Amino acid sequence: MRQYLLPVGRAFVSLGILGTLTSFGQEPHPIHPLGFFTESAVSERAAEGQALAVPEPLSIKTVLRTLTEEPHIAGSGADYKTAIFVRDKLREWGWTADLAEYEVLLDYPGQHISYPVEPSLELLQPITKTLPVRETANAFDKDSANLHSLPAFHGYGVSGDVTGQVVYANYGTIEDFEAVEELGVSVKDKIVLVRYGGLFRGLKVYNAQKRGAKGILIYSDPADDGFAKGDVYPSGPYRPESAIQRGSVLFLSHGPGDPSTPGTPSLKNGKRLPHDTFNGFPLPHTTDWEKQTGLKRDEYFATIPSLPISYEAALPILSNLAGPNVPSGAQGGLPLSYHVGPGPAEVHLVTTHNYEIRTIWNVIARIDGTDDDGRWVMVGNHRDAWAYGAVDPDSGTAATLEACRAIGAALKSGWKPKRTLMYASWDAEEYGLVGSTEWAEHHADDVRENGVMMLNVDSAVSGPTLDLDGVPSMRDLLLQVMAEIVNPHTSKTLKETWIAGQKHRWQSHAAIELDGGVWNGKPEAVRAPVFFPQMTPLGSGSDYTTFVDHLGMPAVDVQFGGRYGVYHSLFDNFYWMEKFGDPDFVIHATAAKLYALIAMRAAGADVVPFTFGPYGKAIQDHVDDLRSLIARKNLADESKREFPRLADLAAAVREFQARAETLDAAIAKLTEAPAPESADQIKALNATLTRVEREFLTRDGLPGRPWFQHTIYAPGLTTGYASWPLPGVRQAIEDDDAKLLDAQVGVLIERINAAATVLKKAADTARN
Amino acid sequence: MRQYLLPVGRAFVSLGILGTLTSFGQEPHPIHPLGFFTESAVSERAAEGQALAVPEPLSIKTVLRTLTEEPHIAGSGADYKTAIFVRDKLREWGWTADLAEYEVLLDYPGQHISYPVEPSLELLQPITKTLPVRETANAFDKDSANLHSLPAFHGYGVSGDVTGQVVYANYGTIEDFEAVEELGVSVKDKIVLVRYGGLFRGLKVYNAQKRGAKGILIYSDPADDGFAKGDVYPSGPYRPESAIQRGSVLFLSHGPGDPSTPGTPSLKNGKRLPHDTFNGFPLPHTTDWEKQTGLKRDEYFATIPSLPISYEAALPILSNLAGPNVPSGAQGGLPLSYHVGPGPAEVHLVTTHNYEIRTIWNVIARIDGTDDDGRWVMVGNHRDAWAYGAVDPDSGTAATLEACRAIGAALKSGWKPKRTLMYASWDAEEYGLVGSTEWAEHHADDVRENGVMMLNVDSAVSGPTLDLDGVPSMRDLLLQVMAEIVNPHTSKTLKETWIAGQKHRWQSHAAIELDGGVWNGKPEAVRAPVFFPQMTPLGSGSDYTTFVDHLGMPAVDVQFGGRYGVYHSLFDNFYWMEKFGDPDFVIHATAAKLYALIAMRAAGADVVPFTFGPYGKAIQDHVDDLRSLIARKNLADESKREFPRLADLAAAVREFQARAETLDAAIAKLTEAPAPESADQIKALNATLTRVEREFLTRDGLPGRPWFQHTIYAPGLTTGYASWPLPGVRQAIEDDDAKLLDAQVGVLIERINAAATVLKKAADTARN
Repeated sequence: MRQYLLPVGRAFVSLGILGTLTSFGQEPHPIHPLGFFTESAVSERAAEGQALAVPEPLSIKTVLRTLTEEPHIAGSGADYKTAIFVRDKLREWGWTADLAEYEVLLDYPGQHISYPVEPSLELLQPITKTLPVRETANAFDKDSANLHSLPAFHGYGVSGDVTGQVVYANYGTIEDFEAVEELGVSVKDKIVLVRYGGLFRGLKVYNAQKRGAKGILIYSDPADDGFAKGDVYPSGPYRPESAIQRGSVLFLSHGPGDPSTPGTPSLKNGKRLPHDTFNGFPLPHTTDWEKQTGLKRDEYFATIPSLPISYEAALPILSNLAGPNVPSGAQGGLPLSYHVGPGPAEVHLVTTHNYEIRTIWNVIARIDGTDDDGRWVMVGNHRDAWAYGAVDPDSGTAATLEACRAIGAALKSGWKPKRTLMYASWDAEEYGLVGSTEWAEHHADDVRENGVMMLNVDSAVSGPTLDLDGVPSMRDLLLQVMAEIVNPHTSKTLKETWIAGQKHRWQSHAAIELDGGVWNGKPEAVRAPVFFPQMTPLGSGSDYTTFVDHLGMPAVDVQFGGRYGVYHSLFDNFYWMEKFGDPDFVIHATAAKLYALIAMRAAGADVVPFTFGPYGKAIQDHVDDLRSLIARKNLADESKREFPRLADLAAAVREFQARAETLDAAIAKLTEAPAPESADQIKALNATLTRVEREFLTRDGLPGRPWFQHTIYAPGLTTGYASWPLPGVRQAIEDDDAKLLDAQVGVLIERINAAATVLKKAADTARN
Repeated sequence: MRQYLLPVGRAFVSLGILGTLTSFGQEPHPIHPLGFFTESAVSERAAEGQALAVPEPLSIKTVLRTLTEEPHIAGSGADYKTAIFVRDKLREWGWTADLAEYEVLLDYPGQHISYPVEPSLELLQPITKTLPVRETANAFDKDSANLHSLPAFHGYGVSGDVTGQVVYANYGTIEDFEAVEELGVSVKDKIVLVRYGGLFRGLKVYNAQKRGAKGILIYSDPADDGFAKGDVYPSGPYRPESAIQRGSVLFLSHGPGDPSTPGTPSLKNGKRLPHDTFNGFPLPHTTDWEKQTGLKRDEYFATIPSLPISYEAALPILSNLAGPNVPSGAQGGLPLSYHVGPGPAEVHLVTTHNYEIRTIWNVIARIDGTDDDGRWVMVGNHRDAWAYGAVDPDSGTAATLEACRAIGAALKSGWKPKRTLMYASWDAEEYGLVGSTEWAEHHADDVRENGVMMLNVDSAVSGPTLDLDGVPSMRDLLLQVMAEIVNPHTSKTLKETWIAGQKHRWQSHAAIELDGGVWNGKPEAVRAPVFFPQMTPLGSGSDYTTFVDHLGMPAVDVQFGGRYGVYHSLFDNFYWMEKFGDPDFVIHATAAKLYALIAMRAAGADVVPFTFGPYGKAIQDHVDDLRSLIARKNLADESKREFPRLADLAAAVREFQARAETLDAAIAKLTEAPAPESADQIKALNATLTRVEREFLTRDGLPGRPWFQHTIYAPGLTTGYASWPLPGVRQAIEDDDAKLLDAQVGVLIERINAAATVLKKAADTARN
């Protein structure tokens, strides 16, 4: 599902504090793959050569055509067909593969006897007009016209029949609602119109219902992914006027997965919250339900009807809003001056949802490792789509399957991973990471004990630009692998291009700090900033979430992005991919090679191929980002908030950095020497390395959302998608809660110290 | 004429280098007006009370209605009528007032026998369509329909009849043209379409003709001042689809004034460049003309036809451009995906200009000072308009005239200024600051010898927000006066509101600098940034230019701005002002009071009311801005440019700052004591204070534009409007010319040292 439109450009590369940089994470010798002893590197390279010869565009294209033949929403017959297809392909290539079913609460658009299937949206005032809830077909694209596809629909939404005046509230962030209120306009008992972008759509619904809105329409503004970005489908890759962004309105940053089984797996006959056919959970608010569950109904799940609409549908509403001009930043790309309302536009919205416990099908495949220590690495990708899902997720399914085929070829030639290699084809990701969350909750002990790392792939290809999100300990593995894959279109390695892109961004955005000493008569001290590339911190919106945030397993999320405006619409289909996304499927093949190589290295390395230097640097930068946030708040209201225990925190981070440096060097030295005779040392080392990330978990979880336990990475509570590094501390700063801040800094110091202790143990083991 | 739309938000307040701030320019005691001895302050305050009782909205409204009754372009009969009106009013109020005529080269739209009057613009391909060159009238606004008004027209443009494919080049900056070229599209022999905004329109023409374009259309995009900003006329204050921004296409940053008399006044029978009826100066390029004049024709003046058009006219062109999607940042607000072209849109453009030597009429009024030392201060405002000019400039004329009426009342009660107070009503400002430049060149010796300071007013009111541009030595005078004027709408003083606005901006944009020491185990050093409000540095676009940049006389430019999108169109008229700009004329009355008080204080103070602390701070910040520019360039291309002689420059600035502090304190002390018996000391002090700004002039002028002589302030060579502080140094950095940079830093140090020497002399005089 993962996509978010940032309303404002943001450089994700942490830029660090100039003048305080130390040099971490030197790249390992290019001929010596991370974690491999020299002798195993030789056979590994031979196997890799065989695997990398496999991926080829036509094969991927054929698989993509098969996967995207029908809309395949989670739990549907078409979805089941893709599960069987994936399972059988994996088996054919030598993997052990099986379905892993879960019974989860899912809604479809009102297939209930007393409701129509289609939602309906009518403009009642000042003119009457029926507004479209389906896309307009393009004659040259057979998939663009399919009445068996979903109409406008928000998964995990509620049924409703509401009429009201409309208020426009930009992206629907808390700040947007506050800006509307400052204009003297209330959204109470109104129907809110907001545009997609910025924060996860479920949080738009949450923000609207908290303020008393009776319904919400979420439209795609052409400024964000339509004509203002470039040519629109079918002439170009961007969103045409009729395209609708379906999607889930789960309150994702409060917790993903089946909402009827929070924190526990959705097993047949397992324990489950009382649920409801029309609204997921009973409405209107019943104190009974709240008493039974201990949950606040309206903090937990949507209570007001919501509908995604196109800009074709939004235009007649927006053109009939009076009231003040919108606040700065809220004007979109439609050709009119936007107004806040309320009214005169009045709409009538009917949404119908049918909730049932439905079966979903993960496919879990494996190649057992030669080490019998039970540890495993995983490649994961979801398979369900709101419609055809050529980009999201089937480009990922096609590319990761091609990687599995490549690994299968190596396997047939005798290659074996050291640790078990798993492949997961998740279901119901679109509803809220349901398949992966239920599986991970089901296998939580195994994940905690044995899960080493994960390559997550959601959409693999929507364009040519490699995007990396991930936990910093996987950075060097990625860089090393990327240096070995060439993009045929550019004849450059993926690393060259990625580094150049990161560097360019850094060059444009790095803070320039001048030496003030010259104004006191001192000679100028040179303070040149230093470039240190990092992956984007993980937030949420894809299946790594449960593994990282709940269970403390490192993950990286790897995709090729580009000019892509048809996200979650009927036009995200095979035609689009062939025309715009990757016409010759060369990016897919490149992605498949990259995925295969990451998986083979991660599973095949003698020593788990983490480096912790980049992690120490990242934590330092995250701390500095939060210091800046406090400083900015102080500037804004002329107060003097302090960062509590900063010296202690800095000491903990420095200790972590020192340990990391020692450990990285010790492993490099260890693997340069011949492999030790006994496997015990390496086994112990690997067990310890696997534990590092777990140490960042706090048993109590993050403030107000205990399921999230990672103290370094989590999605923003108010963003849903985008990362809030050091989330507990960040939240306390956002809430201006000094007591909470103090406590959260304490927790953070404790977890960093704990991780540093494990780093030390690992280094000791490596040097023994 | 002054307006520019910044495509990207920019904080003008120099933020300084954190941690190196020292405290300058403490506000003087509020009851003790700057520069007044206690005893004169008493009588001054009484006179000010009488003056401030005068301005009232209805009187201003009546004058504005008179001034805006007809379009009054420079040199026209209507313009002459306004000159007489202004002269007679000033005489009525006790001023000595006379016309000061100049004979200048001006063009009107083709009133020549063989050419039609109207320009014409036709779309020829892929469809034919005649595009509008006039505004569409609004039935409720009589002034919106006037065939005697100018059609679409660019003053100082050339006649032409060209047909060609169109290429779209965003704002027409150098970078925009480069971005187009990077897409493989050439503008050679094409007609360029660019939008208004960013840089002065004449430089758009310059950039286009330099690249071989055969014509240029400049349109107003709704993203910049149309519907994307708010409701459009007649429903709101922003630019409607038919509105056309007329204006001059002189190469303003190369030099203002009558282009046929560069550097010399346009007197009857004076020396003049050979000129031409159709094109200002002969075309096609004649080596004769270049030999005669020593000028490069195409570096000096437009050579290709240009026309301003509305977005109504631009839309059919833009919708028929193919080629690549535009580069990032070039998409405007029209509802389509913008393309670069070339074509298929092909247009036929005919422009006709008729050049003649025409008479223009400045009105120069004065009230002689009681000191017979010849020194004077000036209030200046232009009077000519492209059409009705209710905002630009007649809000300024009406408000400054009301200030003159108020001063007249004080005069009648016996008040006299110490130094002579002049009022200038400039003509032909719109063509390129012609009236003011010719007058100043005519009276250059007097300006240099006796000109103390100037209050420039262009548009006075387009909304409620006070904007200040100015030389920093006038900051404290302004702040003090602003503290005494209350805006009746807000019941707050102008100072309170302005400071709050500046502070808010600073709070959002000030660079946060963290102490990196904590990462080396040191205790955290607090580095809180310090707020130091400054006026925006002066660029160009209004009549202060010649006084400041050519002759070294301090100036401040003061206006009230707001939601204003009808600049230089037929809709900048009385109806607009009454509906949107200042319906009750209270802002005009507030402006009139502010102007009167500035003038009375500037003319009345015993000691010229400059303070130099803010100037020292500003220069330091300007140096730091250029250091940042170099650092950013180094970051971008990984080179190691240095700021030559930075230590010497810093030492010069620090010396200036120290002298300034001493002087400011000495004057404060002097004026707190009783006035000295002999006037000689004060006379000498005032003479010296008047000289300070002159010291910033360099005889050789700025690189490539010798007419500009000020080493601290000038318009950007490539911006036209926006300021380039330390322009010689800035230009060398922009051009990456190390040798020039070295030389310009040398010049700058020399001028700062010279100014500091004068500060010392003044302080010595003050302390004697």
